[in-house]
Amino acid sequence: MAVETIRWKNNSLVIIDQTLLPLKLKYVKLRNITDVYHAIKTLAVRGAPAIGIAAAFGLYIGIKNYKAKTREDFFCELEKALKYLASSRPTAVNLFWALNTVKNCAVENNQKSVSEIKKVILEKAIAMLCEDDMICKTLGDVGQKFLRSGDTVLTHCNAGGLATATYGTALSVIYRAVERGKKISVFADETRPLLQGARLTAWELLQNNIPATLICDNMAAKVMSKGWVNAVIVGADRIASNGDFANKIGTYGLAVLAKYHKIPFYCAAPLSTFDISLKNGGMIPIEERHEDEIKQIGGKQIAPKGVKVFNPAFDVTPSKLVTAFFTEAGALLPPFAKSIKAAFKK
Amino acid sequence: MAVETIRWKNNSLVIIDQTLLPLKLKYVKLRNITDVYHAIKTLAVRGAPAIGIAAAFGLYIGIKNYKAKTREDFFCELEKALKYLASSRPTAVNLFWALNTVKNCAVENNQKSVSEIKKVILEKAIAMLCEDDMICKTLGDVGQKFLRSGDTVLTHCNAGGLATATYGTALSVIYRAVERGKKISVFADETRPLLQGARLTAWELLQNNIPATLICDNMAAKVMSKGWVNAVIVGADRIASNGDFANKIGTYGLAVLAKYHKIPFYCAAPLSTFDISLKNGGMIPIEERHEDEIKQIGGKQIAPKGVKVFNPAFDVTPSKLVTAFFTEAGALLPPFAKSIKAAFKK
Repeated sequence: MAVETIRWKNNSLVIIDQTLLPLKLKYVKLRNITDVYHAIKTLAVRGAPAIGIAAAFGLYIGIKNYKAKTREDFFCELEKALKYLASSRPTAVNLFWALNTVKNCAVENNQKSVSEIKKVILEKAIAMLCEDDMICKTLGDVGQKFLRSGDTVLTHCNAGGLATATYGTALSVIYRAVERGKKISVFADETRPLLQGARLTAWELLQNNIPATLICDNMAAKVMSKGWVNAVIVGADRIASNGDFANKIGTYGLAVLAKYHKIPFYCAAPLSTFDISLKNGGMIPIEERHEDEIKQIGGKQIAPKGVKVFNPAFDVTPSKLVTAFFTEAGALLPPFAKSIKAAFKK
Repeated sequence: MAVETIRWKNNSLVIIDQTLLPLKLKYVKLRNITDVYHAIKTLAVRGAPAIGIAAAFGLYIGIKNYKAKTREDFFCELEKALKYLASSRPTAVNLFWALNTVKNCAVENNQKSVSEIKKVILEKAIAMLCEDDMICKTLGDVGQKFLRSGDTVLTHCNAGGLATATYGTALSVIYRAVERGKKISVFADETRPLLQGARLTAWELLQNNIPATLICDNMAAKVMSKGWVNAVIVGADRIASNGDFANKIGTYGLAVLAKYHKIPFYCAAPLSTFDISLKNGGMIPIEERHEDEIKQIGGKQIAPKGVKVFNPAFDVTPSKLVTAFFTEAGALLPPFAKSIKAAFKK
């Protein structure tokens, strides 16, 4: 990836405003915790891992100037900031994982002074940013072994560099395959309603010189039936302990279509996307978003104002439709309850 | 239907410009054959049956002022007009069926004077308009027997009154059920790229007080998995003799999803949509349309300019995924090669 989705520079959090892509590549500085909250809420920064990293920095930004009277007062303020950021989006578990990881790190250092604890929090956020880069590369390496040169991969939404610090999850598999000299082509679903595939994945693949063809979501079945797709690879927002997983709306339908066309269906995600406290996918909270995301495009009304809309941001794919998960702990194969458990014991 | 999609009034062809819906209900007069060609080409008038009717009138408009030197000269001009109109769109067979039906009617009357033949052509076009109304109501009656009160139907694109003279095909089934006192709700797929579901079906159902919920195409699998869909009903652009059929892109994927979720999948279409000269769906020519239909919405660029696009307007659903066809000759059930043949022998 030629671009940095999230960076910490001159003591500031700078992100690409992804709502402006592909027309404009604009970096914006998030100056306070409200800026970070809104950047996550409005999808200026999106993708489960990137949300987690932004939130970790958001926690630091939220407390860095707080003049605490006592340590207790400081931790109370930290908890308030955490709850505020956690309320920005409900589905991606990386958000809660990152916030709690940073908080636990602060708690472990609670014998230190408040200004030292603040430093610990910042260092943890920076460490997460670096780790994410390594994790994405590693899970890409794991996944690329499942691709042969000449393969065409179908992907949905954006699980690329723009969804993480650098390489992405689903797209990291492709980038790592290409780095090893394999020829890989991509079908990118446009991904309605917010068009992350058309706006972000198509843009990102072009930037990286990967041959990509943009299709509408409803064309995936056709390209599969023509034998043009060798693998489907998607990211995830939350994976339950049995392997059921939530990802961008449309993923579940793709999994059914892949099954019908006997095409392997892979999910690439870091271990921080697994929520092993959940027995199955039915327990994952699913965000519903505003009806205008469907009824308007770029401010232009495309549907009658009076019509009712159903706008779930995610769906849940049952693990029985998944061929393998690509993680930094290796490829997890069925039975997933067992392989996921094993990955967390490593 | 409160609106007339196509009407012949004061010796003029008047259509609703469907590219302006749902923001504007505008009737436009098609003054010459070029107007008719462009109305079909740009989807101002669309839907297989409506295209056929518009083309029939277009043929009359194309020759009504032609000062033929001889009958041969007249038929030569008629053939030219026919070929021109036939080149507007390749997939919907109703276009060719309507043009040939009108032409054959003219040929049968070739002993008459040129001005009388012109009159015969106009009368045939008007008869088609009336017949379409009757046929749509009849196939709606046939289909509504398959729905129970309380059912929710998922539909794709617009196979409603806007696709025909009045009642539509897929939506006629719903209208006729409601007229018989059944409570029917609808999920309308928005139908990318041209959003006929969001723009036309949602608008038409609102006009007719049918409870409708608009979803993105990639949400169909989710609403099916929740048990919210009792039947999928779609229209068709061309049906081969074995029951394979072409319809708006996305239909095939829906058929696979319906099969997976054990939901009946129906296709409602007049016999004029059947092309029994074709052995199977592989022989149906599929229109590919301009990439800007996907890359832009309402003139606004939503994808990077350099990205490649695949934009087929239709896909082919194999007959094995179809539960029944609703036609004016009754419900056709598997094995379709047999039931379709029988319908044409009636």
